[in-house]
Amino acid sequence: MKIQLINPNTCQGMTDKIAVSAQTICLPDTEIIARSPAHGPESIECAVDETIAAAAMLDVIAQGEAEGVNAHIVACFGDPAIDAARELAKAPVIGIAGAAFQLASLVSHKFGVVTTMSRTLPAAHHLLHRYGYHHLCTGVRATDIAVLDLEHIQADVYKQLVDECRAAIEQDGAEAIVLGCAGMSDLANEISSELQVPVIDGVVAAVKLAESLHALNLTTSKSGQYATPFGKAFHGRYQHWSR
Amino acid sequence: MKIQLINPNTCQGMTDKIAVSAQTICLPDTEIIARSPAHGPESIECAVDETIAAAAMLDVIAQGEAEGVNAHIVACFGDPAIDAARELAKAPVIGIAGAAFQLASLVSHKFGVVTTMSRTLPAAHHLLHRYGYHHLCTGVRATDIAVLDLEHIQADVYKQLVDECRAAIEQDGAEAIVLGCAGMSDLANEISSELQVPVIDGVVAAVKLAESLHALNLTTSKSGQYATPFGKAFHGRYQHWSR
Amino acid sequence: MKIQLINPNTCQGMTDKIAVSAQTICLPDTEIIARSPAHGPESIECAVDETIAAAAMLDVIAQGEAEGVNAHIVACFGDPAIDAARELAKAPVIGIAGAAFQLASLVSHKFGVVTTMSRTLPAAHHLLHRYGYHHLCTGVRATDIAVLDLEHIQADVYKQLVDECRAAIEQDGAEAIVLGCAGMSDLANEISSELQVPVIDGVVAAVKLAESLHALNLTTSKSGQYATPFGKAFHGRYQHWSR
Amino acid sequence: MKIQLINPNTCQGMTDKIAVSAQTICLPDTEIIARSPAHGPESIECAVDETIAAAAMLDVIAQGEAEGVNAHIVACFGDPAIDAARELAKAPVIGIAGAAFQLASLVSHKFGVVTTMSRTLPAAHHLLHRYGYHHLCTGVRATDIAVLDLEHIQADVYKQLVDECRAAIEQDGAEAIVLGCAGMSDLANEISSELQVPVIDGVVAAVKLAESLHALNLTTSKSGQYATPFGKAFHGRYQHWSR
Amino acid sequence: MKIQLINPNTCQGMTDKIAVSAQTICLPDTEIIARSPAHGPESIECAVDETIAAAAMLDVIAQGEAEGVNAHIVACFGDPAIDAARELAKAPVIGIAGAAFQLASLVSHKFGVVTTMSRTLPAAHHLLHRYGYHHLCTGVRATDIAVLDLEHIQADVYKQLVDECRAAIEQDGAEAIVLGCAGMSDLANEISSELQVPVIDGVVAAVKLAESLHALNLTTSKSGQYATPFGKAFHGRYQHWSR
Amino acid sequence: MKIQLINPNTCQGMTDKIAVSAQTICLPDTEIIARSPAHGPESIECAVDETIAAAAMLDVIAQGEAEGVNAHIVACFGDPAIDAARELAKAPVIGIAGAAFQLASLVSHKFGVVTTMSRTLPAAHHLLHRYGYHHLCTGVRATDIAVLDLEHIQADVYKQLVDECRAAIEQDGAEAIVLGCAGMSDLANEISSELQVPVIDGVVAAVKLAESLHALNLTTSKSGQYATPFGKAFHGRYQHWSR
Repeated sequence: MKIQLINPNTCQGMTDKIAVSAQTICLPDTEIIARSPAHGPESIECAVDETIAAAAMLDVIAQGEAEGVNAHIVACFGDPAIDAARELAKAPVIGIAGAAFQLASLVSHKFGVVTTMSRTLPAAHHLLHRYGYHHLCTGVRATDIAVLDLEHIQADVYKQLVDECRAAIEQDGAEAIVLGCAGMSDLANEISSELQVPVIDGVVAAVKLAESLHALNLTTSKSGQYATPFGKAFHGRYQHWSR
Repeated sequence: MKIQLINPNTCQGMTDKIAVSAQTICLPDTEIIARSPAHGPESIECAVDETIAAAAMLDVIAQGEAEGVNAHIVACFGDPAIDAARELAKAPVIGIAGAAFQLASLVSHKFGVVTTMSRTLPAAHHLLHRYGYHHLCTGVRATDIAVLDLEHIQADVYKQLVDECRAAIEQDGAEAIVLGCAGMSDLANEISSELQVPVIDGVVAAVKLAESLHALNLTTSKSGQYATPFGKAFHGRYQHWSR
Repeated sequence: MKIQLINPNTCQGMTDKIAVSAQTICLPDTEIIARSPAHGPESIECAVDETIAAAAMLDVIAQGEAEGVNAHIVACFGDPAIDAARELAKAPVIGIAGAAFQLASLVSHKFGVVTTMSRTLPAAHHLLHRYGYHHLCTGVRATDIAVLDLEHIQADVYKQLVDECRAAIEQDGAEAIVLGCAGMSDLANEISSELQVPVIDGVVAAVKLAESLHALNLTTSKSGQYATPFGKAFHGRYQHWSR
Repeated sequence: MKIQLINPNTCQGMTDKIAVSAQTICLPDTEIIARSPAHGPESIECAVDETIAAAAMLDVIAQGEAEGVNAHIVACFGDPAIDAARELAKAPVIGIAGAAFQLASLVSHKFGVVTTMSRTLPAAHHLLHRYGYHHLCTGVRATDIAVLDLEHIQADVYKQLVDECRAAIEQDGAEAIVLGCAGMSDLANEISSELQVPVIDGVVAAVKLAESLHALNLTTSKSGQYATPFGKAFHGRYQHWSR
Repeated sequence: MKIQLINPNTCQGMTDKIAVSAQTICLPDTEIIARSPAHGPESIECAVDETIAAAAMLDVIAQGEAEGVNAHIVACFGDPAIDAARELAKAPVIGIAGAAFQLASLVSHKFGVVTTMSRTLPAAHHLLHRYGYHHLCTGVRATDIAVLDLEHIQADVYKQLVDECRAAIEQDGAEAIVLGCAGMSDLANEISSELQVPVIDGVVAAVKLAESLHALNLTTSKSGQYATPFGKAFHGRYQHWSR
Repeated sequence: MKIQLINPNTCQGMTDKIAVSAQTICLPDTEIIARSPAHGPESIECAVDETIAAAAMLDVIAQGEAEGVNAHIVACFGDPAIDAARELAKAPVIGIAGAAFQLASLVSHKFGVVTTMSRTLPAAHHLLHRYGYHHLCTGVRATDIAVLDLEHIQADVYKQLVDECRAAIEQDGAEAIVLGCAGMSDLANEISSELQVPVIDGVVAAVKLAESLHALNLTTSKSGQYATPFGKAFHGRYQHWSR
């Protein structure tokens, strides 16, 4: 199968990194097509960033769909534009936050989330509510590590991240940790070894869910909310969306 | 004061219509600057439309802010990009759905919402939850009238709308009606006369709330979630957002 | 328009003070009629006080309605007897807690409430739930300042109040402050200057909402829950209510 | 023990009727003191009625407390003034709605409520939320029988009531019925025989709970919310409350 | 009446102790039949214990039902197997956690729960949600006292328990205390004297509720969820359940 | 990897059927070990059945764990004893209801559940709440097909099932269907072809989730709620659990 793995940030470093994470754990016959949009912010750390990245990302969804990919993964912890993407796609669209919450809930009674900037906290809480996992989460902790600082992680940044995970376990009662940024994808195993609880990275979680849906022949329902939009005119820089 | 009244749809007809609604009820010294984005869909009727319109609308927010407007109104019932707009603006940003819910709750125990297309129902429910008004709403009813058909309303479309409002009152127990599209702005008084309950249009509700905040010198808090984003690079067609 | 501004406490000092607050910000053609009931407690600080003040206040609602006022404001943060008042009135009835929550939610992501006595905390939480704003509130903090001590505020009391507001911002993450007593009405601007976040006083918020509803010709729905009560006998000191 | 059984309506007929219900099922050494306030509405059927009855009822609570009763029962399904009553009383204060919900939840998975006038429905829903039983209730059905028509029940009114109970069972899935008015107290056994499900009358439920608390030596906590109010001046017809 | 008081733990010491508690406060004509299952864990302190004890306890329910008891009390704070027991029994089945929450809510605005092992906290929270009392609870505090250590309580264990109750009152704002284990049944009065708030033991609470239901002739509804199961084959050690 | 697929019912026919379903879609190197307990009811259709099956099933968990299986699947839609199983197992334990909800939420905005007997509805609703999917479910519909009638499905039973699925889509707005019984496992593809929406069977969903967790090296957290129980005495037929 072909999985389009979309980094909605435009920073190529993170795209390369998550491609490696995905390729390491995917099935032999899974092809990972990792992309980021041509347009938009280098990193997504506030609502302005996310609003713009969401619109830009839809071009990538349309491209993958045209190419016949079997699943799309939105590899930003805010799961941006997931509803719009599902309207455009017949293939399933999986956000990494939703994917991580699902697997975390299978191996723990309550999990904690450790993320990047404080101002992404409301977005994380919104997703916990949207997906219905708020009562299973012991809290969301911000490290105030900038997304781009995750490209080449220094020892002090790593320590900061581990310390926050440990606080989630010891102070909040987390029994597992969800990493709240695609840029942390390569650290899950190391932190899990250190803290002795399951540590879930949404990127690889989403890859396995995509493969699962594919094996079961499950694709986005086109009945109701995610039906293909009917045609209309778009203007200016979105003219190519006119249908 | 200057109020920037934004129609996030690119259809000029609706922009003109809501400008008239706003000017009819604003204070003598309020200036209404009605605009729609240069880019994006003619009408917003699904998540794809809304995702693209949201990004396009931020340019208008930035323009108004640069001009020193005293309030921004987002005149689409989905209240798109309201968080991003508040990050960009010092002036208050008011969505018409939120505004309508507020005034409706002051004159009724429970209100009903009557809107356009069925597929916007989840968005309406999401806003009722987000703003905390779900328990005060008797239900959201779709008419399946297309947004652009509201520009010049025909008798049969009007009847369809009134019938749905009457059903909300008689079957659902609504004590007041919130109109779920800016394009219905000119119909509130007529429907209220016919059905003898308060009928709330979010456009004029938002204008009065904007004037209220201005009179009380209340502007968007820049402490916390709505702080101004810090600078970063944007690429491609969003390069002008590089800060 | 005529706004009846009701202080449900019988202390004239607070009635005079809120009249000044209202007159300072109302429109030129708004007449403020400030009143307190002839009967009841000097201040409302527990459920017994509120239960008695609620019954006494209905006489004032009836009087204002007979005089043809265009709006009633209930200027006690517990919004006492608001449902009964709406049954009696054709004019809108606005509680100051509800009014403050509405405007606070327009200029912040989450707001804090700072109020008087600890034992009014459950009442404040009840109102946050009733109006649907609980999820937008970072918490309610009591100062244990007595209501009557707000008539002529001393420096130490003022400091106590500001300290609690600061704690709401710094410890709880409040981005705006709602003042939880009509008696604090004259302090909003000063505290806002000092703390650099929006500070909302419910009295002036309610005045602007009353003017907004009036401008839009919106009055209490008489269909359903707030329909005029049908006649029946009342006995003893409530005989004048026999209808 | 002495139980003060308060009918907050001023109609003596209902007071006499519930006294009989209570005396029929109380323990041999329980004395039932049935009273209604000297002031207030003949029947409670809207928020105005309830607001006035609530204030009037507090005099009865104070009288009973002075006489040393061991429990107070508020025998109106809206459980009016229950918080204020608990502030005044050392003896427990039990509302009949709360009492009925408790026993109903012990003998059924989900129960239905059948009450009097439609406009009391919001009050019933409010109590279900307040006490936490909303998820255990299949719905509240109004019969639109006036409270005073329950004093001497005619055959057609009885049939109307039974029909609504049957609808609650057959259409809503109720497994037990809570009767939503003290005036229905004498009908519980008959309806239960006819419909073959438990039918709970709050008056007798409250009597048994009052006896239970007394046997266990449990009285209203005076720590926190229900502490005795501190003294202050009351004016006009409430001067006797000055403490 | 006959009450079957079931200790789902197999430790006879606790069975004897709660029998004494029950006999001390029951009516003269109430007979207490205290039993524990022949099978299962000595104490219930995790989900494995509870799952096994639940199945074992059903034999005791069936035995009591065959003997014609008038009520069953499940005297373990997790209220195990309460739904299955109600399917089997015509007599009411009362769990001690549910019983304690009901009485606590009649004498306080908010109560705290003090229980044994930390790992029973999720079970306690589950019950608060199931019965609808979560919003009335200030928190659940674990003492990490083992259940069997409650059989003969030493001074230091008692002090630990009282300290936790005091913390619930002073730090969490509890106005009453619910004891979270049947093994604490004999301590309620002593702790209440020391801390001067109501302290509720679920065992005696359940006895009084059982007597209340009996006096009102209320038994488990056999319409719907708690209808008697229809017959089927059971195998192995559960063959005696074949119906 | 080895997956222990447990049918908590003792009917061998269903065990064989789900083994086939699982083997059809598992990876080449996955070994399915399908088992049912030696003890307990032939089918699980009420709380008594489930309570007994839960205890019996723990023996199978312990056996699989001793054999070193890499995952356990509990193939009964009530997800019985899932917490106890997780305490016993280091390998992940997956219930089929939870698994089905997860995958359904990835391919639809809202899904419906179609199950067997009416009296299992409360159990299904409980699981939707427990896992946090209630707001994503359009409703649970019972077919009143007995579990054992699913072993060899007749044409009329199949039609009844499809009709109920169609009603969920057309009347309730379901965009995907979750089949509410392991015994329906072999019908998902056929119903999906007929109704043109995704139809999710929990058995195969759980197999793919088990393989996903195994690929990511995620096992049950032993920190907190699911820690291994400490030793204690068990009596009678549960003596083998003494630790």
